[in-house]
Amino acid sequence: MQHPNTQRWQALSRKATEYANAFDLRQAFSNQPGRFAALSLKAPYLCADLSKNLWDTPILSELCSLAESKNLNSQREALLAGEVVNSTESRPALHAWLRMNHYQTAKPEWSRGLHDMLTVAERLRSDTELDDVVHIGIGGSGLGPEMALQALEPFKTCRQRIHVVSNLDGHDLHQTLQGLEPARTRFVVASKSWSTTETLRNARSAWNWCLAGGLQDPGNHFIAVTSRPERAAAMGMMQTLHMPEGVGGRFSLWSAVGLPLAVAIGAEGFRQLLQGAAEMDEHFAQAPLQSNLPVWLGLLDVWNSSFLRLTSRCVVPYHHGLRRLPAYLQQLEMESNGKRVDTQGQSLSYPTTAALWGEVGSNSQHAFFQWLHQGSQRVPTELLLVRHPAHDLDGHHDALLANGLGQAQALMLGAQASADQLAGHQDFPGNRPSTVLLLEELSPASLGALLALYEHRVFVAGLVWGINSFDQWGVELGKTLARDLETRLSTGDTVGLDASTAGLIAWVRGDQRVYI
Amino acid sequence: MQHPNTQRWQALSRKATEYANAFDLRQAFSNQPGRFAALSLKAPYLCADLSKNLWDTPILSELCSLAESKNLNSQREALLAGEVVNSTESRPALHAWLRMNHYQTAKPEWSRGLHDMLTVAERLRSDTELDDVVHIGIGGSGLGPEMALQALEPFKTCRQRIHVVSNLDGHDLHQTLQGLEPARTRFVVASKSWSTTETLRNARSAWNWCLAGGLQDPGNHFIAVTSRPERAAAMGMMQTLHMPEGVGGRFSLWSAVGLPLAVAIGAEGFRQLLQGAAEMDEHFAQAPLQSNLPVWLGLLDVWNSSFLRLTSRCVVPYHHGLRRLPAYLQQLEMESNGKRVDTQGQSLSYPTTAALWGEVGSNSQHAFFQWLHQGSQRVPTELLLVRHPAHDLDGHHDALLANGLGQAQALMLGAQASADQLAGHQDFPGNRPSTVLLLEELSPASLGALLALYEHRVFVAGLVWGINSFDQWGVELGKTLARDLETRLSTGDTVGLDASTAGLIAWVRGDQRVYI
Repeated sequence: MQHPNTQRWQALSRKATEYANAFDLRQAFSNQPGRFAALSLKAPYLCADLSKNLWDTPILSELCSLAESKNLNSQREALLAGEVVNSTESRPALHAWLRMNHYQTAKPEWSRGLHDMLTVAERLRSDTELDDVVHIGIGGSGLGPEMALQALEPFKTCRQRIHVVSNLDGHDLHQTLQGLEPARTRFVVASKSWSTTETLRNARSAWNWCLAGGLQDPGNHFIAVTSRPERAAAMGMMQTLHMPEGVGGRFSLWSAVGLPLAVAIGAEGFRQLLQGAAEMDEHFAQAPLQSNLPVWLGLLDVWNSSFLRLTSRCVVPYHHGLRRLPAYLQQLEMESNGKRVDTQGQSLSYPTTAALWGEVGSNSQHAFFQWLHQGSQRVPTELLLVRHPAHDLDGHHDALLANGLGQAQALMLGAQASADQLAGHQDFPGNRPSTVLLLEELSPASLGALLALYEHRVFVAGLVWGINSFDQWGVELGKTLARDLETRLSTGDTVGLDASTAGLIAWVRGDQRVYI
Repeated sequence: MQHPNTQRWQALSRKATEYANAFDLRQAFSNQPGRFAALSLKAPYLCADLSKNLWDTPILSELCSLAESKNLNSQREALLAGEVVNSTESRPALHAWLRMNHYQTAKPEWSRGLHDMLTVAERLRSDTELDDVVHIGIGGSGLGPEMALQALEPFKTCRQRIHVVSNLDGHDLHQTLQGLEPARTRFVVASKSWSTTETLRNARSAWNWCLAGGLQDPGNHFIAVTSRPERAAAMGMMQTLHMPEGVGGRFSLWSAVGLPLAVAIGAEGFRQLLQGAAEMDEHFAQAPLQSNLPVWLGLLDVWNSSFLRLTSRCVVPYHHGLRRLPAYLQQLEMESNGKRVDTQGQSLSYPTTAALWGEVGSNSQHAFFQWLHQGSQRVPTELLLVRHPAHDLDGHHDALLANGLGQAQALMLGAQASADQLAGHQDFPGNRPSTVLLLEELSPASLGALLALYEHRVFVAGLVWGINSFDQWGVELGKTLARDLETRLSTGDTVGLDASTAGLIAWVRGDQRVYI
């Protein structure tokens, strides 16, 4: 087990005990008039207020030193230069490289698929015989397009309808195909390895639907996005867009997997997304750690998780278009840093990334904000606001922004029940941490910058924790066991299984009646 | 502060330390061949396997005694009889009463709205001049219909499209109204108090949209669901369905708020939903605590949160139709039991309800399951499976069920990296708790039973914790502050504000450029 026995780590641990028990945000603002200025920061397309967290400038400085001691500067360079940073799989992590280099063709084997994709997107957009594009992909290859399509709905300029199907559960594909016409539908199938069970199963069922609908040439209605074109071709796919091995699923929106989004907003819109992300990449690359927003946020996550021992983080975007952002970020962070060993495979002795969860605001004020304000846990809450709306309905937007700001204020300030209120029930402890991110508007460029910000934040936290943020060995065991259980579900063989799994198989098979 | 200084609580606390450190699920199954039978249970429309949790029969018995000592038996009777159980608001909690008595008219002031609603639903379904029903409601009045409409999509038998709008963010309503025709649209506006800011704002904008669309009589296109009909009438609503004061927003699907669902599946379908829930109510009412599923689940939540000190719970429904169930349950649990004082307003000294979060399976296997298997926290995971699908796509459903079972198995068993694998990276600690719920099918009746199960579970846990699960004082402070900030956003006045809130107001107003 790797003990974090450096003096720096131990010093931070000692301080954390003090901050967890005695630090009071209200007091901190009284004591330090410059606290907001010192702990807020601007970056491309957005600004961020980190001053309502249970830390201060000395802690941030210490954390920056910790990051330097972990070689953040050189590792950041290696990431952005496309060097091998995914050590267990001996691969680069190319998402940022692709954005920063999308205008040139320095490494055609990496950027070709992206360029080809933009051409294909334009062709599909102008195809008057095409009504529906069905994108099939799971994990980041599903969540990325789904989230971005919602976020950029006002920028959708194609006449085609775009659908995303992810789930192995056939209800997903079945419902999506209702009312669609095979001859006027195109399927995009995204799987880097071309071995993703869910995606291949859905692709086969879509293929069968095309055949049943009278198509002679289903292959012409499918576009594969993969790094294994030979496998896609063997399945009959007539067109393949290349996805480099070095792009992980959760970072794949920036690759040819972005096709459904590019169809929706056009090649030029997609280039703006890349450009906005690249501007954040530049900020991450160039700004000193002490004024580098992804660095600040990554270090805040380390402080909250590993030092203050807070076990989850709540993300609340105050924008209907960002309603799937929490699910997207949940994957990004929890799959990247949901690990308990370091890059060498040694067990870590401190908690790493927290659970990330959340829902759109203002809706969630009527759901779990009761718990955030008066529950028994203290959970850092992150509120995303957007200054300018893309609608002109009167009286909504200022009220929305005031609600977001009011929640952050209430979490910090708390309140005591007044004389005519119910003591206890109407008390709010306050001193609960929050962060506000403010975007100027929600556009392809600002969405790109926002997502890149989160990606680098995850990289920074992972680096300080000493883990490889780019692999995901933890998803393998369940897949292996599921293959075995699928056979057993059909045979009924439960030999060698634990009693619970065996009992559940009997229930599922209907060997016993499942309810009273 | 209320100290849980009963002998029973202290004895459980001592055992919890032992179970948190030394209990091993794999060992428990080896030691006790009857463990699955002893810790699994059938109930109406579903069965549940609780044997893969970090407890055993003696713990469950102790917890049942604890619940008895908190008068669960009499409190359960009081709840189901419609007596006052919401002490801070001096109200009954009528959701279960409404279901158990929906066939009769014993208390017309409670059940009238529900009956009238079913009549209205049938009228809307048969209205050939109606194309779209837009339901406006937030919190449970939004999540309930949204979740249930998705879950029961295969049972939708009306030709009208049904939409749900919740967010104060105008993008929600704006996008929903695209392409709709005022004359062929009906709005349902649900707000018990008729003072919900978001809902009234959306209703006003919808009204203006009707006027702008040339309607002379918008009032005829609105149906209000409220317990304050005079307020709705003052706003011009021509028709009102009554909602009793005793139905909380998060329990309101069972009341006239269920109108959009009743339009979708018909009055008969809605009665089946009520009937399925009532069957679970009967199980809760009649079964001894020792074989009562809502009781078991509520006690498991208490054990995990207050004794084992686990801080969150993950809910993963393996069904595309249940993709919003985690959000619905998040509200139900976190708003009901997200409290740190008892019914008398005294501070509690133990943690109450955990954070509840989750996403649909199998999608989430490609998102946060990495974290569940190999992250640094141990989080109880709840998997919901459905035996029979409502589609006939080949090869999807068995694979889906095998995946759900495989994840639960993997969480428990864990694995050590083999000789040709990466030590550490490919190790799985195992011994991570999970619960499986298995539904026979997803139908109106079984959905009703499932939701009632969760409601009673929350009631049981709240009762043992000593809190009032039916109020939500914690949402008030943020609302109050938001009203003040909305004014300040327009005037720019920041006098008296903390520096962070003041700085954010300046950013939002554009008094400073928001990004670099």
